[in-house]
Amino acid sequence: MHYEAPEWGTLEKIEAARRALPQEVVVPPLRQVDGLGLMCENLQVTGAYKVRAICHILNLKARGLGEKGLALASSGNFAVALAWAGRHYGVPVTAVMMRRSHPWKVERVRAWGGQVVFSGDSTEERTAALHALTEQGIHVVDHLNDPEVLVGHATLGLDLAAARPRQVIIPASTGGLLVATSLALKQIDPLVRIVGVQPKGANAMVDSLRNGELRRLDTVVTECDALTANRPGDLPWQLAQQWVDEMVEVSEEAVRDAVRYLVEEAKLVVEPGGAAGLAAYRSGQIPEQEGTWVVLSGGNIAPARLAEWIA
Amino acid sequence: MHYEAPEWGTLEKIEAARRALPQEVVVPPLRQVDGLGLMCENLQVTGAYKVRAICHILNLKARGLGEKGLALASSGNFAVALAWAGRHYGVPVTAVMMRRSHPWKVERVRAWGGQVVFSGDSTEERTAALHALTEQGIHVVDHLNDPEVLVGHATLGLDLAAARPRQVIIPASTGGLLVATSLALKQIDPLVRIVGVQPKGANAMVDSLRNGELRRLDTVVTECDALTANRPGDLPWQLAQQWVDEMVEVSEEAVRDAVRYLVEEAKLVVEPGGAAGLAAYRSGQIPEQEGTWVVLSGGNIAPARLAEWIA
Repeated sequence: MHYEAPEWGTLEKIEAARRALPQEVVVPPLRQVDGLGLMCENLQVTGAYKVRAICHILNLKARGLGEKGLALASSGNFAVALAWAGRHYGVPVTAVMMRRSHPWKVERVRAWGGQVVFSGDSTEERTAALHALTEQGIHVVDHLNDPEVLVGHATLGLDLAAARPRQVIIPASTGGLLVATSLALKQIDPLVRIVGVQPKGANAMVDSLRNGELRRLDTVVTECDALTANRPGDLPWQLAQQWVDEMVEVSEEAVRDAVRYLVEEAKLVVEPGGAAGLAAYRSGQIPEQEGTWVVLSGGNIAPARLAEWIA
Repeated sequence: MHYEAPEWGTLEKIEAARRALPQEVVVPPLRQVDGLGLMCENLQVTGAYKVRAICHILNLKARGLGEKGLALASSGNFAVALAWAGRHYGVPVTAVMMRRSHPWKVERVRAWGGQVVFSGDSTEERTAALHALTEQGIHVVDHLNDPEVLVGHATLGLDLAAARPRQVIIPASTGGLLVATSLALKQIDPLVRIVGVQPKGANAMVDSLRNGELRRLDTVVTECDALTANRPGDLPWQLAQQWVDEMVEVSEEAVRDAVRYLVEEAKLVVEPGGAAGLAAYRSGQIPEQEGTWVVLSGGNIAPARLAEWIA
């Protein structure tokens, strides 16, 4: 099978984006634990993969931004990455966060000098908040539809390619990381199998692919605060139909078990959403296959909350 | 300054030992967090550095062991490593553990097929238990005095040398890891500064170096269950006077703070003893110096106990 990449997402473009990332954005440890590969993106600077896309965007746009700077809407990890990158590049940044965003993540954004604006939890309320920032002359990153965001995410696939994976399991919210990782990996090896994972209570991409049309959830119920999208992103949705081999749903209990396993066996702190891929693997829903890798996409969990989960 | 290595511990011998280790004994991630280097030996297979020495010993002796196998006395991490290596090499192994050894570590030894024998906590009681095993024809590793154990530990220094450290902070119990790491690093760069760290309540090496003679503690009081030696090992003690630049003591509170910091900022699970080096650094007792690395020597802590520490 041959995969035709969109013009904005060729391997050459992803490779160029990877080379331009700051050296602080590391190739994360690629570890084998009990025969399974763990890509430890929780050990990435800012504790999650989002910093890749933010830095890529800033590499493209930092010079033209002016003093108003950059903004985006995020439930947490994207905002944390934005704050770090803003400081790194010397650009003012504003995160539109949700009232349900975890306080630990809000504090982290502020600690790194980012502005925080709260909006309601619905897509409409967030859109309105972003619109208000645009009116002030701030450049707003449309992380659901900007192909360059996916190019940034795709650099993770490039880092994982070094391990020559045969099957890769990836948590999904709007589906950006999922399709972007596939975009990089399948251009290198079309036979690599790409599996996306969502919590049962936040399964918009599962539902959309099952029905062959973009579905929107009325309610989202999950403790995975990094995976709370109520719909796929438009661009991820377009790509998912071709680039994703399988979607799997996991229970909250399976996620909790995975977080605990990672502490006990792998000595890693991974947040609930970041552990969803491992949860799917450990619950026996994914075919055993040599060369299976799980992306541990983030580790930003407050210590007190982790304590509750593992006690 | 020139350091004259003992004949058994030349750089060539340490390098040969490193090359012979099983591939599962990885070069652990070397990470920069907030400008400080973290050598993540907690992410080593078996969750601590001890597996290096056990595998080195088995590389030397496995063929001659016969069916009785290998034994050693350990409060925990050495026993866990012994059990893993016994399974890996197909050699029967017996760990003499203490009644105060943490149940999580005892269970882990058994899970990997190791025999566990309990002895009292005093050196005399452990010696008696080991003597009984010797009588049964089991080969007992004298991990306080066997130079080959130090050669095994020294492979860690070799792995860290890739980061070109200028100052290295290392937790110490009997002092084996401390002097062995120095043995490797100072043969490569005599200017590297080696700092050992002990809990205030288990400071036998500090006390011995301060007094210029090997001191034995009457009581050991610390939550760092990997650092409970009541005296330096004989061989580490001989080497420490030349190969260690400074010793520092840390409070239990500083250790607790370091464990919490590692969870929150570095997304790493590190056991109390493994975090003692970072505790010393964070409590401001060690001169700031570019190229400072802390060895996080182990991560074997029961999830329920970690939960208490970070809640």
